[in-house]
Amino acid sequence: LNVPKIKDVKIHSDFWSRYISLVGNVVVPYQWEILNDKIEGVEKSSAIRNFKIAAGLEQGDFYGMVFQDSDVYKWLEAASYVLEANYNEDLDRKVNEVIDLIEKAQWEDGYINTYFTIKEPQNRWTNLQECHELYCAGHLIEAAVAYYLATGNDRLLNIARKFADHINNVFGPDEGKLKGYPGHQEIELALIKLYEVTKDERYLNLARYFIEERGKEPYYFDIEWEKRGRTEHWPGLIRNFGREYAQTHLPVRKQKEAVGHAVRATYMYSAMADIARITKDEELLETCKALFKDIVTRKMYITGGIGASAHGESFSFEYDLPNDRAYAETCASVGLIFFAHRMFLVDHNSYYYDVIEQILYNNIIGSMSLDGRSYFYVNPLEVIPKACEKRWDTQHVKVPRQRWFGCACCPPNVARLLSSIGKYIYAYSENELYVNLYISNEYEVDIGENKVKIILNSDYPFGDNVLLRINVKNPLAFDLKLRIPKWCVEYKVFVNGKEENNYKKEKEYVVINKTWKNNDEIFLNLITLPKRVKSHPRVKDNIGKVAIMKGPILFCLEEVDNGPNLHELFISKDSRLEIKFEEQILNGLYVVYADGYRIDEEDFGKELYREDYEYKLLPVKLKFIPYYAWANRGKNEMRVWINEI
Amino acid sequence: LNVPKIKDVKIHSDFWSRYISLVGNVVVPYQWEILNDKIEGVEKSSAIRNFKIAAGLEQGDFYGMVFQDSDVYKWLEAASYVLEANYNEDLDRKVNEVIDLIEKAQWEDGYINTYFTIKEPQNRWTNLQECHELYCAGHLIEAAVAYYLATGNDRLLNIARKFADHINNVFGPDEGKLKGYPGHQEIELALIKLYEVTKDERYLNLARYFIEERGKEPYYFDIEWEKRGRTEHWPGLIRNFGREYAQTHLPVRKQKEAVGHAVRATYMYSAMADIARITKDEELLETCKALFKDIVTRKMYITGGIGASAHGESFSFEYDLPNDRAYAETCASVGLIFFAHRMFLVDHNSYYYDVIEQILYNNIIGSMSLDGRSYFYVNPLEVIPKACEKRWDTQHVKVPRQRWFGCACCPPNVARLLSSIGKYIYAYSENELYVNLYISNEYEVDIGENKVKIILNSDYPFGDNVLLRINVKNPLAFDLKLRIPKWCVEYKVFVNGKEENNYKKEKEYVVINKTWKNNDEIFLNLITLPKRVKSHPRVKDNIGKVAIMKGPILFCLEEVDNGPNLHELFISKDSRLEIKFEEQILNGLYVVYADGYRIDEEDFGKELYREDYEYKLLPVKLKFIPYYAWANRGKNEMRVWINEI
Repeated sequence: LNVPKIKDVKIHSDFWSRYISLVGNVVVPYQWEILNDKIEGVEKSSAIRNFKIAAGLEQGDFYGMVFQDSDVYKWLEAASYVLEANYNEDLDRKVNEVIDLIEKAQWEDGYINTYFTIKEPQNRWTNLQECHELYCAGHLIEAAVAYYLATGNDRLLNIARKFADHINNVFGPDEGKLKGYPGHQEIELALIKLYEVTKDERYLNLARYFIEERGKEPYYFDIEWEKRGRTEHWPGLIRNFGREYAQTHLPVRKQKEAVGHAVRATYMYSAMADIARITKDEELLETCKALFKDIVTRKMYITGGIGASAHGESFSFEYDLPNDRAYAETCASVGLIFFAHRMFLVDHNSYYYDVIEQILYNNIIGSMSLDGRSYFYVNPLEVIPKACEKRWDTQHVKVPRQRWFGCACCPPNVARLLSSIGKYIYAYSENELYVNLYISNEYEVDIGENKVKIILNSDYPFGDNVLLRINVKNPLAFDLKLRIPKWCVEYKVFVNGKEENNYKKEKEYVVINKTWKNNDEIFLNLITLPKRVKSHPRVKDNIGKVAIMKGPILFCLEEVDNGPNLHELFISKDSRLEIKFEEQILNGLYVVYADGYRIDEEDFGKELYREDYEYKLLPVKLKFIPYYAWANRGKNEMRVWINEI
Repeated sequence: LNVPKIKDVKIHSDFWSRYISLVGNVVVPYQWEILNDKIEGVEKSSAIRNFKIAAGLEQGDFYGMVFQDSDVYKWLEAASYVLEANYNEDLDRKVNEVIDLIEKAQWEDGYINTYFTIKEPQNRWTNLQECHELYCAGHLIEAAVAYYLATGNDRLLNIARKFADHINNVFGPDEGKLKGYPGHQEIELALIKLYEVTKDERYLNLARYFIEERGKEPYYFDIEWEKRGRTEHWPGLIRNFGREYAQTHLPVRKQKEAVGHAVRATYMYSAMADIARITKDEELLETCKALFKDIVTRKMYITGGIGASAHGESFSFEYDLPNDRAYAETCASVGLIFFAHRMFLVDHNSYYYDVIEQILYNNIIGSMSLDGRSYFYVNPLEVIPKACEKRWDTQHVKVPRQRWFGCACCPPNVARLLSSIGKYIYAYSENELYVNLYISNEYEVDIGENKVKIILNSDYPFGDNVLLRINVKNPLAFDLKLRIPKWCVEYKVFVNGKEENNYKKEKEYVVINKTWKNNDEIFLNLITLPKRVKSHPRVKDNIGKVAIMKGPILFCLEEVDNGPNLHELFISKDSRLEIKFEEQILNGLYVVYADGYRIDEEDFGKELYREDYEYKLLPVKLKFIPYYAWANRGKNEMRVWINEI
């Protein structure tokens, strides 16, 4: 299956255009200012300055995390997507300024990393476990591929290839090469992108090498540690997290449970899925399926967040999904979308897109404030601001969103995802077109040799209507594959105004095989209703509680609408869930009203414990807003899972 | 009011005699072996060896915590109580061996502390905030008073007085003296004990000085920190916890909320209550009442545990009482008993004893294994062993109990409390006798000038019967004040077989004013029933849940009786709570049976989330055991608060 080019998908969804233009008009420019240290009162970045110093253009010391370069690369990647969708000279000029710096910071042999160039040039490649050189290289390669695909300009691509060639000379199975692999996976999926653009198989092979070498004995990270005299970049931290942290506890094919750092994990699984697809490696595909299933059926919050433990930003054990202490790092959700998308490309199942939708509409867009200027790194499902201040075990939860972070991986990761969202809407081959996300857009694609234009208008998931118009020069036969999201309670398909019942259903796709004529119109009626959702009984914090969803949209209660102490509220089992659009709230939101109760504190009195007492319940109207819109009205309580009575 | 001497109260309660003889026959001897490093496979103590080194009898280095000496002193105190109740020569010989060592380790000027003597003799009194010199001195004084009261032997008392005199020369308001106070409160209450034994007012005044100086500006702990060149004994730890940690954030009279390290807090409040009583300081008493109320009505687990946060072993904010992450340090509960007892002595209210009973029957005896050989430092209300291993935020919960600790404050603290439990049963004055705990015993006391013997037989709280016989030589008038515990649903008083209705009720005491004749018999029928208890609705983790209590006895579910995943169990609202004694379980326990349900996991299926689903409930019989007996049948799940349906 092929993935659309971003430039070929013109999104005109009211809902998504707002986010995309926010990325183009606010997020990318704002992050540019931050990378250049021009915003007061936020965490200093120094990321561009580090490049200037490494390039010999400025004097000074390196500042920031050892992986600070990756902020620049992720920005470049997002900027490239913005350029691809909507070229603008000013942004391209900024991108080229950065490319100039990267070029100048590149060593003769191809190596690039500002931390090592400035601080420890003699120690290149001596601490793969902790120092993120290959991780940063991966983000450079992703940015280079993105910029090349966006503009056709191969300047950055050549820089990246030269670095990749250097890495290929340093690492690999051949005698004299290092037998290492990254401490933070990322370069594997990047090398595959580089392979797909250049068709140079060395990059694919190097990616496979990094994947297959991982978890073997003797343990490379001990070998390099001994070799460098047992020094640590982060003393007592990364090495102490143990081998599961970076998924080096087993050879990857033996890994059947998702463990350790959730971003490292999903980036690696993404590369594994790519390799399984490209090399038709069935065993590796089965491994990927097992890992995906483990995440989605045992370790994923209903928001699409993953990584339940702040300790090592990692997966916790099965069904351990506390709401208040969730880590659910934004980047990990981005990583899970990468993984799910690649699984779809090899397995063609709607199931993967159910997960993508769930993540996208909740954890991803919820991580950003509605003005695009502040972000969550950690995405909890229950917040009591006082607990975040006072309790050590919820101090990683920062409310409301922050403007920037010392470790600023998440905001640019969201930017690069949202600016490339068009890629996720469709997939196609010689004789088929998958429609996966019902985001209004116009798309031009070659099916076989023939140009096809799709005009998609949809109000899904808030409404039920999807209208597709097909423009072709000459009638053309292909399979139109329409995804039926799992939350549809009912659906109908109409072709040119007539209900169509003569279709196959494959892996939750309606497959319409037809010779399409110009202006053929397909109407898809996808009915989703507000629903109570329960979680698996093993999830101990959710017993007796429900969450409200409509389609992929998760709702939550906020203090500003429902008063404080949200845990004292109950939703009535027999209440209707009334959804309506309210214009006056945050520029317009769909909200859900339900009947419920609030415990009468007065009636309980002042003692801490009472015998033989029933709480007195006072009827209240509960008001839920979409989770993605929470924490946009000041610091206040929020709750996804609500008691049911 | 006067407190009984331990030797005057001969306990013959089956229930309590077991604990007391465990302390005498197992705990104290076992701890002696540990203090002498004679037990393999437990945390090394070195506490006695440190004294040998400080005394010049051995070569070597100090080992252990800076407050390691206090383990020896707490052991001495417990041993003294054991001796007082039941003299035995072998134990007294061991005690005197230790006294020899302490004497030899004492400096010419009276100073004693093995850490400073061995490691930093030049730095005495330079780091009160972190280094526990005054804390250890306090425990020495408590031990000395205990040994003197037990045996009349004043050897250790003289050593302690010499040290106290030295401290009085070093600290105080006079010119040239240090204006400091302890970083860990303890010496204040010890000095008051020393004052009460010696009647030397300097000790009372010094205690008051330490209390009143606390929290004043300029901040002494900054002054000494500057003076010693900003060094830290525990870098980044204690100083970083902030001023609330050691209750130095405000002058004590302005403190109305219990905050910070829970042991430090309760030890300090105990001294404050003593001072309020002795000096008739109404303002200080009001402060104590406010603090006590804050703890008991907002910050105390139903087990009597306090300190909801592992971070700084401290109180969390009001109503923040998570069950799985509880800290509820054993020592803090001991401290709260000290505080409650002293509050009773000044305020004469049964309310304080309700709290003492609740702590004693649950957190205190539950902290020790039934064989007396292993202990909880942390006392959770909900345990999933896998979470304790895997989650960083429950790693402080160690199950099952451990044999000893690197920081071994708790086991000797329990030992000294249990071995002195007789002191808590009664209180008396010239013309009144309070009966506070219904623990079977014989007690000889002088009421006024007259010898009175009380023979108390009781099966409370498991049974309902309390029988008191009074032996007097000549008829004697005094008020007999019988405490009516708050959990009594009904009570009746019979005097010599006839129901007595002609009594006053004062602060939940039945006050029988009568001229007592020899062999007068009072029968008290105190009916307690198994009850469902709910917590204040602000306690968010307990919504929808109940705990089962009978009188002060809290019950819990264990996996060994009820299967795994205890959170999937529900107790039925209309179930009878059937209590019965079962001989075959842990040598006999009262257990509670109730009807309930278990969620059918199979019916839910393998997905993580389901729309519009109701859990299928399978009927089960629930079996509760007393909380104090949990974790005596291997590592397994435990739960106090159970879902109700």
